[in-house]
Amino acid sequence: MSEEPEGFFGTVALVGVGLIGGSLGMSIKRNGLAERVIGVGRSEQRLMQARILGAIDEYRIEADDSVEDADLVVICTPVRTIISKLRSFSGRYKPGAIITDVGSTKREIMAAAAECVPPHATFIGGHPMAGAEKSGVESAFPDLFLGATYVLTPTDSADLSALGCLTNLIETTGARVEIMGAEEHDRAVALVSHLPHVISAALLAQTESSAKSCGSIFRLAAGSFRDATRVSDSPPEIWRDICLSNADEIVRAIEDFQLWINSMKDSLLELDDKAIYDFFDSARGVREAAMRLRK
Amino acid sequence: MSEEPEGFFGTVALVGVGLIGGSLGMSIKRNGLAERVIGVGRSEQRLMQARILGAIDEYRIEADDSVEDADLVVICTPVRTIISKLRSFSGRYKPGAIITDVGSTKREIMAAAAECVPPHATFIGGHPMAGAEKSGVESAFPDLFLGATYVLTPTDSADLSALGCLTNLIETTGARVEIMGAEEHDRAVALVSHLPHVISAALLAQTESSAKSCGSIFRLAAGSFRDATRVSDSPPEIWRDICLSNADEIVRAIEDFQLWINSMKDSLLELDDKAIYDFFDSARGVREAAMRLRK
Repeated sequence: MSEEPEGFFGTVALVGVGLIGGSLGMSIKRNGLAERVIGVGRSEQRLMQARILGAIDEYRIEADDSVEDADLVVICTPVRTIISKLRSFSGRYKPGAIITDVGSTKREIMAAAAECVPPHATFIGGHPMAGAEKSGVESAFPDLFLGATYVLTPTDSADLSALGCLTNLIETTGARVEIMGAEEHDRAVALVSHLPHVISAALLAQTESSAKSCGSIFRLAAGSFRDATRVSDSPPEIWRDICLSNADEIVRAIEDFQLWINSMKDSLLELDDKAIYDFFDSARGVREAAMRLRK
Repeated sequence: MSEEPEGFFGTVALVGVGLIGGSLGMSIKRNGLAERVIGVGRSEQRLMQARILGAIDEYRIEADDSVEDADLVVICTPVRTIISKLRSFSGRYKPGAIITDVGSTKREIMAAAAECVPPHATFIGGHPMAGAEKSGVESAFPDLFLGATYVLTPTDSADLSALGCLTNLIETTGARVEIMGAEEHDRAVALVSHLPHVISAALLAQTESSAKSCGSIFRLAAGSFRDATRVSDSPPEIWRDICLSNADEIVRAIEDFQLWINSMKDSLLELDDKAIYDFFDSARGVREAAMRLRK
């Protein structure tokens, strides 16, 4: 690889070619970042579809040795499956290979990698903050990562040239790389991603339960309800995996959230005009600032 | 009015010509539902703008007697201002006039109307479930109410022909009229509208507070965070008014919500695989059903 530009890979293996894997494959191929992109999966039909859609050059039905000639292996499955793949691929990587994943939580995956990835390969955890409600390679498109934050969680001892190569590839897809520790990542996403999903599901459960005694409830649900519950379109198996893998941090975020909700409840009980105004006013300010930051 | 079709009014007075009042005026004029539409407000400049945009035919700078020749008076201001308008217009309505409002809560407004509207006029509370994030007559458009639910809360003794006329006018704007009691309305909107606003503001306050110790938090906030907090774009003065006017029902909704969140927290603490899956799975089902109901 020494004569190729940094960020160029000979063979890339995408394990799982759905929305994320498929979009990554399309972007890698469009930008000429690899000699060939191999899709690895269980369903021949879906792999053929991925090839027709231009996400991969060739495919393999998954086996323990299907990634052994890859310079870069990207595991693009739900969290629990990523861990089982790491166990089944075990030591069968090419010397110098870079292994990464796209899981929404990082501590558990980093621990599994520390146990299973041999010293002749480098594991770097990854989490592209893009996509979610849709799934499947039929929803994939090469610009999915454009402007998205893409977290990498290398270990302290990670090979720096491997980190450079991977960063380069990701930045070419249009994403912005953010390097952080797995702990910091899991705490932050518990708040900005996992908690909103839990809240939305709780709100829907509550509304359904209330609708039993008040039939008009859903007819009164307008834009604010639609927005607040949009994330609940996501597949439940993905969210079960995420919750199980980050339960402690999500519980912590829920407990913190309860303090804020309680303080608002107190202001309401006291009919505290100014506190209520400030609560909504500063929320609007924070949101505006956050949205500017995202641009 | 006896020779005119049901739902036709001679003079309509819109008190407050912002997004809702302006859109209502445009729709009334487009559908030929009134002989003339008068805008009543405090700022001559904004009233002139409303006339130029075709929301009203003429305007009056607001005074206690500005609605005395109107057959239909629609008070289109934030909740607390609606109550003060009802007090200042007091008994100065034309005999047989219909008075309505567009406030987001109904119990307090119905109580003020019972006190201030004289027996020779009929008050019917109203709440169009449309618009919110934008404001001002410059955002108004005649199709704002198309497909929206428009709640009417007549008193038990309301004049039925007045209710028929008002219903007819509203249905001509494209909205679907839902008749219910003020208590049922306030309880339902506390859950499907006010609670999501409180939750969103709490989530933003929590995130801002956490960002002080974890600078990367806002950079990790992707689509789910954006959706979950979208409603916090709304003007804080409107939400302060709504909260003060419906505090008891919002507190009740918050307490009920806390039970659902606590049950999810318990499932997380127990790493209860099945309960977590079911929680997200049934949330998705409820949302799908709710969105179908809204179409």
